[in-house]
Amino acid sequence: MRARRSLIDLDDLHSSEIEYVFTRALEFEEELPPRTLLQGVACLNMFFEPSTRTVTSFTLAQQRLGADVTTLSPRDTSLGKGESIEDSAITLAAMGVNVMVIRHPEAGFPRRVAMAFDGHVVNAGDGAHAHPTQALLDIYTLRKEFGDLAGRKIAIVGDIVHSRVAHSNIRGLCGLGAHVVLVGPENFLPESFRANGVSVERDFDAVLPEVDAVVLLRIQRERISEPGALSDEAYIRAYRLDAKRLARLKDETIVMHPGPYNRGIELADDVLTYAGWRYANQVRNGVFVRMAILDFLVNGERRIA
Amino acid sequence: MRARRSLIDLDDLHSSEIEYVFTRALEFEEELPPRTLLQGVACLNMFFEPSTRTVTSFTLAQQRLGADVTTLSPRDTSLGKGESIEDSAITLAAMGVNVMVIRHPEAGFPRRVAMAFDGHVVNAGDGAHAHPTQALLDIYTLRKEFGDLAGRKIAIVGDIVHSRVAHSNIRGLCGLGAHVVLVGPENFLPESFRANGVSVERDFDAVLPEVDAVVLLRIQRERISEPGALSDEAYIRAYRLDAKRLARLKDETIVMHPGPYNRGIELADDVLTYAGWRYANQVRNGVFVRMAILDFLVNGERRIA
Amino acid sequence: MRARRSLIDLDDLHSSEIEYVFTRALEFEEELPPRTLLQGVACLNMFFEPSTRTVTSFTLAQQRLGADVTTLSPRDTSLGKGESIEDSAITLAAMGVNVMVIRHPEAGFPRRVAMAFDGHVVNAGDGAHAHPTQALLDIYTLRKEFGDLAGRKIAIVGDIVHSRVAHSNIRGLCGLGAHVVLVGPENFLPESFRANGVSVERDFDAVLPEVDAVVLLRIQRERISEPGALSDEAYIRAYRLDAKRLARLKDETIVMHPGPYNRGIELADDVLTYAGWRYANQVRNGVFVRMAILDFLVNGERRIA
Repeated sequence: MRARRSLIDLDDLHSSEIEYVFTRALEFEEELPPRTLLQGVACLNMFFEPSTRTVTSFTLAQQRLGADVTTLSPRDTSLGKGESIEDSAITLAAMGVNVMVIRHPEAGFPRRVAMAFDGHVVNAGDGAHAHPTQALLDIYTLRKEFGDLAGRKIAIVGDIVHSRVAHSNIRGLCGLGAHVVLVGPENFLPESFRANGVSVERDFDAVLPEVDAVVLLRIQRERISEPGALSDEAYIRAYRLDAKRLARLKDETIVMHPGPYNRGIELADDVLTYAGWRYANQVRNGVFVRMAILDFLVNGERRIA
Repeated sequence: MRARRSLIDLDDLHSSEIEYVFTRALEFEEELPPRTLLQGVACLNMFFEPSTRTVTSFTLAQQRLGADVTTLSPRDTSLGKGESIEDSAITLAAMGVNVMVIRHPEAGFPRRVAMAFDGHVVNAGDGAHAHPTQALLDIYTLRKEFGDLAGRKIAIVGDIVHSRVAHSNIRGLCGLGAHVVLVGPENFLPESFRANGVSVERDFDAVLPEVDAVVLLRIQRERISEPGALSDEAYIRAYRLDAKRLARLKDETIVMHPGPYNRGIELADDVLTYAGWRYANQVRNGVFVRMAILDFLVNGERRIA
Repeated sequence: MRARRSLIDLDDLHSSEIEYVFTRALEFEEELPPRTLLQGVACLNMFFEPSTRTVTSFTLAQQRLGADVTTLSPRDTSLGKGESIEDSAITLAAMGVNVMVIRHPEAGFPRRVAMAFDGHVVNAGDGAHAHPTQALLDIYTLRKEFGDLAGRKIAIVGDIVHSRVAHSNIRGLCGLGAHVVLVGPENFLPESFRANGVSVERDFDAVLPEVDAVVLLRIQRERISEPGALSDEAYIRAYRLDAKRLARLKDETIVMHPGPYNRGIELADDVLTYAGWRYANQVRNGVFVRMAILDFLVNGERRIA
């Protein structure tokens, strides 16, 4: 079996490869490529958790590159019929499936598939582990805003410990020389996250005037009611981004969120009309970044003919 | 945000636009257009109620126009994750989705989506409110049969009050000058439906010899057992179309049904072999009418190059 | 209604037609055809039982031929709304659906659809009755290995009575002059299977040195615990293919399995590294055979332009 390139977490890409992917995404954004880059390439999307935005974003990316797209609802599959996922992966590769895009509640599941699958696997989120295409689109969005990220201060706010987005972002941003400021209460953000280039802050208000970007995370309501957690009201009082807090930001500071966001919990409606709110840009960029990743994994580094 | 054309109920179209759509549908029926009319247009079908025929009809229409088609099963989506449908609509538009086709049990739901979505929304049925593409294909079928509908008498028979098809049809047929005769028992058809150009009749047998077309509605069995409702037997005795009643029709009277039909309830098997039974024509016309609507919403009025 | 060619069980094909399909599959395998063979042909896949491999295999086959593919999850359809499957089939044909690929737990269901549907039906498995495309790909795999099958000895091992794969294979292999040796315990393999060209054996070890191919069947765990059934341990002791049994095979004997296989039940892991293990070939061949069947049903016998 030949080993093929997969994207399970950000470490699978060298920084020069990330640069290539970003350059490619920018090319695609400026002009849609001919629908031949993935012609005859069979992509199978298997989402073992509910998804609207991510599965649609990958589907659009595949269609725009001319791939053959199949999206299975895992509830309809026979993957529970006593066969291991490794055996399924071998079968699907034999059948001619070239790319599998996988979301799964279990951390490490996409890696297991990639070990067995003679094709390319893209991790679309595995438990609290990683969500590398979300991290790439976040960093792409920041790069379009600021150019070089070295020395930039990026706050990531909320439930860090349970967030695969946070984990992938911390890794990616540090690699590019940014300073990451993690902000949240102790139960969401243990001291152990402190590291080279990564600081841990409890006081959101103190951080606001210093940062170039604020990345808000989705708060799972069920997490707020865990024992030892802040109450809803206490969380909102300390960490919700609202008009008063927006006023403390520097003029050019941008605000991001991976979506879907909870209005009233991690953000107030004021954020949705803030000039620096970049949510729609992130979503839009996501399709181009996913196109670039798929093109890179399948075709390697090359120019458009 | 630019306002884009959507089709939520029939009033969203001027009568001249309906004429354009019908002309276009006829062109498509005579010769399939090149698969470039919706090239690169991303269509997302979201059916929050079970559907086979309508979702397949829209899918075929989109494929024949060369669109990129994604059909999500709402049970697989994350639309319940605390995000409003308006926020989802904004996200999907940012992603590059151009057209959303939506069926939902709640009257008014597709309109809410259309208010937020920077793209085109087609209502594929919302509660008891409207089902405009079904109305258009019904009227298109009648027009192909009779030409001008002014002065034509069209009976709509059955559970008027709960039927989105009936509501859209009444509106559309009156607008074209037809006389609509609503037929059914009181619990399915309150007197309040009587209006200019719309009469209400309880006696189906008396109506039969006078009408040019009979549109049967599907009877939900659970509705028949509601308190105050006619029994199964009483409904069938008074309103089922069978051989004896078919014999009372004028020779050229046609019979229609939006499907799926209940054999033995609203119609006897005799209807299926009646020369004027137009069910298959309606189904076939539906795809061409939906192609024409999609083309009109996305491309406006224009000729095929 | 014109009768169109369908594939419900292997008897629907003359042996010369099977030869044509195999020739065509081989052509497709050597060089993928232009994506025009099913251009504008609408294929609807309806799987009323969970499936990953078969639904994906059919989808890939359809996409490679340029068809318009729609896959409905039966849980999302309205097929339970009181409408018979015959009425649904009439509706879908009127809409322009050309090909229906159907899997259903009820033996005979695809035949009922084919009787009403003015298009082509492919049976993708109906209860314990038949699974003709699996049989064709199995025979195609054997033919590529051995050429003429006349006089070849093929063992089919396991739960014969409940297996649609076994039923279709027995029929097809006998038709080509092979000698079929059925192997299994009485509850899985009644004496009544004995027929012209078909022998029944209880002793797997005795059979091993004589056969050219071993086709293992999937064992449903729930079947093993039926009253009168062998225990897990007894079944494994008598019928599991493992290193010791592999050693008794002739050098050129191949081993096949329709998948998904239960490691540890019908086969030990040793089989997966046996030089004659043809599972991946079967899977790969399946897509080409399904392409050839679809092309044959829709286009008849013809050469590639």
